[in-house]
Amino acid sequence: MLTAREAEVLNRIDRDELLGDLSALIGIESLGGAETPAQQWMAARLAGLGLEVDTWDIDFPALKKHPAFSMEVERERGLGVVGTFGGGEGPALVLNGHVDVVPVGDISQWTVPPFAATIRDGQVFGRGACDMKGGIAAALAALAALAASKVTLAGRVALQSVIAEEDGGAGTLATILRGHRGDGALSMEPTELMLAPTHAGALSFRIRVPGLSAHGCVREEGVSAIETFRPVHDALLALEADRNRRLRQPLFARYRLPYALSIGRIGAGDWPSSVPDLLLCEGRYGIAPGEDAEAAKTEFESAVSSAAAGQAYLAEHPPEVEWWGGQFMPATTPMDAAIVSATTEAITELTGQPPRVEGMTYGADMRLLVNQGGVPTVLFGAGNVRRAHRPDESVPIDDLLTVAGVIALTALRFCRGS
Amino acid sequence: MLTAREAEVLNRIDRDELLGDLSALIGIESLGGAETPAQQWMAARLAGLGLEVDTWDIDFPALKKHPAFSMEVERERGLGVVGTFGGGEGPALVLNGHVDVVPVGDISQWTVPPFAATIRDGQVFGRGACDMKGGIAAALAALAALAASKVTLAGRVALQSVIAEEDGGAGTLATILRGHRGDGALSMEPTELMLAPTHAGALSFRIRVPGLSAHGCVREEGVSAIETFRPVHDALLALEADRNRRLRQPLFARYRLPYALSIGRIGAGDWPSSVPDLLLCEGRYGIAPGEDAEAAKTEFESAVSSAAAGQAYLAEHPPEVEWWGGQFMPATTPMDAAIVSATTEAITELTGQPPRVEGMTYGADMRLLVNQGGVPTVLFGAGNVRRAHRPDESVPIDDLLTVAGVIALTALRFCRGS
Repeated sequence: MLTAREAEVLNRIDRDELLGDLSALIGIESLGGAETPAQQWMAARLAGLGLEVDTWDIDFPALKKHPAFSMEVERERGLGVVGTFGGGEGPALVLNGHVDVVPVGDISQWTVPPFAATIRDGQVFGRGACDMKGGIAAALAALAALAASKVTLAGRVALQSVIAEEDGGAGTLATILRGHRGDGALSMEPTELMLAPTHAGALSFRIRVPGLSAHGCVREEGVSAIETFRPVHDALLALEADRNRRLRQPLFARYRLPYALSIGRIGAGDWPSSVPDLLLCEGRYGIAPGEDAEAAKTEFESAVSSAAAGQAYLAEHPPEVEWWGGQFMPATTPMDAAIVSATTEAITELTGQPPRVEGMTYGADMRLLVNQGGVPTVLFGAGNVRRAHRPDESVPIDDLLTVAGVIALTALRFCRGS
Repeated sequence: MLTAREAEVLNRIDRDELLGDLSALIGIESLGGAETPAQQWMAARLAGLGLEVDTWDIDFPALKKHPAFSMEVERERGLGVVGTFGGGEGPALVLNGHVDVVPVGDISQWTVPPFAATIRDGQVFGRGACDMKGGIAAALAALAALAASKVTLAGRVALQSVIAEEDGGAGTLATILRGHRGDGALSMEPTELMLAPTHAGALSFRIRVPGLSAHGCVREEGVSAIETFRPVHDALLALEADRNRRLRQPLFARYRLPYALSIGRIGAGDWPSSVPDLLLCEGRYGIAPGEDAEAAKTEFESAVSSAAAGQAYLAEHPPEVEWWGGQFMPATTPMDAAIVSATTEAITELTGQPPRVEGMTYGADMRLLVNQGGVPTVLFGAGNVRRAHRPDESVPIDDLLTVAGVIALTALRFCRGS
């Protein structure tokens, strides 16, 4: 049952303002490495809501020394932004959202402009709509309602607006190291309104598969790296199938491949009529919660080595595996953590039923909050990750409003508002 | 039997000067599109030998309208250079050589610097050593010997120094259209001192293989273009095997794949944790002498279509085939052409035995001389194409001297020198 005060705050959640914020954010082309304008917008917006805003230049040279640091896109500059509502000594709630988005891919497959919001059929379309500018806009709407209702918290709620999530989490790591922690955290990643107390890991890898160059007109004098790659590719597909059979977990029951080994980029050759002497293959290697990441890497390297050993050229010229860029470890928050019960209660209150609980297959900044920050964290957000990282990314507006309500109610109860 | 005059000219071929010219040429990084410094060097060198030099800016906009035009590397500027020795009305011999070289590929596979000549074990190493700066240096040595001997020709011999051979032949086409033709031509491509009156063709192709993007963590929601490419790749390998069985010709008997279908470049994806929605594949499609190129293209396109039809995603989203860049048609000079007997005679005289006659599997500017210029042409040069387009490209010095001698003797006899 909602109290009258809670109902008053929830009523102040403004749909138009939420859509306005989300449209503004989609309109800022905040690809990895180019997040500063989006962060400046966030800092101004948070200040406009009357929050105390901490804005700072991230010290990348210092950050790179941290063992949990990983980053794929080179950045010379990047901003940290945290807006805090309330300053009490009671329980502190963290809201975490990233402003960086992934590239648009093949633009011809989009039916809407990626960097201008399109509102249609109850959804918002655009790059980042669900991953995760929608979640940030929902958090802003919740904070705006708390502020407009002049709520007083025994504790405090802070929105961490971060960069570089997609390529390794440097923004959240910097935020934690600056001292922004709390007693529980909610990260607004797209979970389709499910509650996710666990997520898989994903380690970025690069494989260099050698070949031997030759003029294409006598191609058998060379060895095409496109052809030497084939058995390596087969071995990776087999490894993925085997691991996903072996490492099944109940919270990931609906996925055939919860720990996907996905190749995201390959490139070979520099001239159409030369035989390519090198194939570069980059991708993400899914890791199960609780799995030993070092053992999983060894398993991957062994699969590549075995494939190479069975191939005439690669046996003598073995491929090289490199772990680089985003190294997203898995993370799990215990089911009896306060943030789990608080969000479960708020979701049940607002949707009329307890949330479906599932693990997410993607790596996320949650791991840094949990593993580095010691903050019990859940993922909860609007939209489907199946619509992220692809053309016509979208998010349902009703679900954004639900997320905003759940955040406001969780903040009121978790941080003891009045 | 050599005449005294012929022997005198041949004795004037200067090994040190030849190696000096070749070293200078290798030192000029004349990658496709960046040939101007090499052409300026050639113009100065030819003038220094006392030849009449025609140097001009190639008019690319006009050239592009020609049906035989093809070019892969965009060029705004390029020079044509032809140096002519003798001005008589008698038979005119053309020597044709290209200064452009292909990229170095994986530099770590080189044991010598690609753009600085290394002379070792009787060979010259460096990018372009055999393909075909060695041939140009041999021609310069022959012309220098003719000039130093104050030979008078009833006809004339012209060295065409051209650009853009590797990516389509625009330089030779421009040279022919400027009016530089002759009664026979020798192109100094690497033939291992064999005489080649025929060469295969090679058509550059590009295939766009679509996929469907998705977040790598739910990769089965997408369709990886790396995976949809697999059946297309299989079909191309099968097509190549079938054609090379079917189109056998005696002058190509030593090759299992005289008309190689070689993929030189692939690329897919722009983010390690997104499923690639597009794979680009570029390569060269070998064409047999006498084959109908249009029919061969149709055969290629059908193979791609059939592969696509058997694949769930591609059946609905067919790959696209594009013919672009270098379109090297095959070419053949009749065995009874004067240039064939003249070079055969000179080779026999200088090496003590008739040349081995073979077809070359690579496309070359010879096709433009033959098909557009109407000039009967043979390929004859030092070095092995197996050492071209790959690391540590090299050419044997003795063979360069043989080529220089054959050129000088052929010029003396073909153009009636005294």
